Amino acid sequence: MSKQELVVLGQEEQEEGDCRPTLLSAPLGEEHAVELAKVFKALGDPVRLRLLSMIASRAGGEICVCDLTPAFDLSQPTISHHLKLLRQARLIDCERRGTWVYYWLLPEATDKLADMLTRPGQPAAVETSS
Amino acid sequence: MSKQELVVLGQEEQEEGDCRPTLLSAPLGEEHAVELAKVFKALGDPVRLRLLSMIASRAGGEICVCDLTPAFDLSQPTISHHLKLLRQARLIDCERRGTWVYYWLLPEATDKLADMLTRPGQPAAVETSS
Repeated sequence: MSKQELVVLGQEEQEEGDCRPTLLSAPLGEEHAVELAKVFKALGDPVRLRLLSMIASRAGGEICVCDLTPAFDLSQPTISHHLKLLRQARLIDCERRGTWVYYWLLPEATDKLADMLTRPGQPAAVETSS
Repeated sequence: MSKQELVVLGQEEQEEGDCRPTLLSAPLGEEHAVELAKVFKALGDPVRLRLLSMIASRAGGEICVCDLTPAFDLSQPTISHHLKLLRQARLIDCERRGTWVYYWLLPEATDKLADMLTRPGQPAAVETSS
């Protein structure tokens, strides 16, 4: 395998429009794989997927933690732990306002994953600005 | 939260073009979240991501396990274990021919993930042109 290819992918150079590498178009470099695996691991849990979908689909773009917790038969600390893992993967961000914490999606993260999973030759999920 | 929405998402009805739900457009149902989390969990490991990218990007569409193993400082049984997890997630399939096993991508799986991660209003990863 060409070392050259691995280096290019590891640098996350995604500015070249149709020519940018995806997970499916060229062997993934080791460092890049480690970074990307962290994000997929954060998505690899049903509670976190449901939390992410509730946050992402919320009209207005953000949701109070007080509206997330009642949807689950889980304690507040458990929900907070899952939210923390989504934040650490940079899929969501949050801000405390008074008593409550409000969460919102970081769409550039999901856009990037969608692009990485798009087959070469298929249009990217999202146009990148060059 | 509306039970109705959860049921629709759980049935994986994705045939309705622009109207199909994604992870980002509506709260994900519990059963669907469990299924989807299994696939993301399979992707949540750097070795498996590298294996998947090597398989997916191979010219000709398939790759011999004998060409995968040398790229890793891991034993053959460890590589086989990772490949088995990717197969169980239905991301790849394989066939034994003589001494060796050959692997290929199941692109409908990655297409589905790309679609699930595409924001409402953005073109789907597959089937639209920009």
